[in-house]
Amino acid sequence: MEFFETVNSRHSYRGPYTDAPVPDADLVKIVEAGIKAPSAANWQTTSFVIVNDPEVLNKIRALAPDIKGLNTCQALIAVVADGPEESPRPGLFFGVQDYAAATENMLLAITALGYASVWTEGMLARDDNARTVGDLLDVPSPKKVRVLLPVGVPAEPLADRGRKPFVERAHWNHWSK
Amino acid sequence: MEFFETVNSRHSYRGPYTDAPVPDADLVKIVEAGIKAPSAANWQTTSFVIVNDPEVLNKIRALAPDIKGLNTCQALIAVVADGPEESPRPGLFFGVQDYAAATENMLLAITALGYASVWTEGMLARDDNARTVGDLLDVPSPKKVRVLLPVGVPAEPLADRGRKPFVERAHWNHWSK
Repeated sequence: MEFFETVNSRHSYRGPYTDAPVPDADLVKIVEAGIKAPSAANWQTTSFVIVNDPEVLNKIRALAPDIKGLNTCQALIAVVADGPEESPRPGLFFGVQDYAAATENMLLAITALGYASVWTEGMLARDDNARTVGDLLDVPSPKKVRVLLPVGVPAEPLADRGRKPFVERAHWNHWSK
Repeated sequence: MEFFETVNSRHSYRGPYTDAPVPDADLVKIVEAGIKAPSAANWQTTSFVIVNDPEVLNKIRALAPDIKGLNTCQALIAVVADGPEESPRPGLFFGVQDYAAATENMLLAITALGYASVWTEGMLARDDNARTVGDLLDVPSPKKVRVLLPVGVPAEPLADRGRKPFVERAHWNHWSK
């Protein structure tokens, strides 16, 4: 898919997925796009756990039975960030920027391949869910699961929630009041 | 440009730019890609100041005379994040994730249009540079300039710094030791 068409077609999808499978080869392409994202000083602080084993999927689903996409997706990608204490240069940490750039690359790759997804981070910030999912996936501390990306063929049309107009978000040379 | 080709062609470019101009229409396309990035709860916490006035560019350049790209680029985009205290839901803040996703969309758009760039954040974290650039661009506090993206036609070939192999970054269903 053409790049700008991909950007314009990506929408946060919160509905159910069909039971069409997601081939391993597509999951690899998606995660490779995540790996290709830039990271501060090329430290590559982001890792990925691809989940398509129904048993593991079901354990994650049990934590958020209200999230439709998570409960019907054929696969998901857990985005894992290094802990600040793992930084090669103590006191310097750009791990959030790194995993966010990788996540955005994967959301676009998911779109380009005809699937849908949504950046799922809030449910991990609640309770002890990040640690619980990390334990389920054997993620070693201090690394932390920061985002879950469901992957699947959407069963419903994607909705565009819209954006504020360009003139409210962008300025030329000086912030315009 | 095709999406995966765009992802594979994007490299952090730290060399000088040619004096080929960057038309306003291209800068708008790049920033529109940033606007289209997802943001938590669609709060749209990221703003953009497009800088192509040579006088303003020179003032920013004076802060980092050692950064080749910044000193030769025909335009740059200042990525501005809301302050945490501006969050619609106090205590909840995903502003870093938001501006990082927008920045990645713009880096890919810059690539798709045949230009080069590099995520420039470290120099803003040093000294009081973020505030100084913010003041130059009239960015109202508590919003903060977090990233500068130079935009231009690269004068030298782009280099791929490489990535750790897939098996070191990605795992299937469980973290493999």
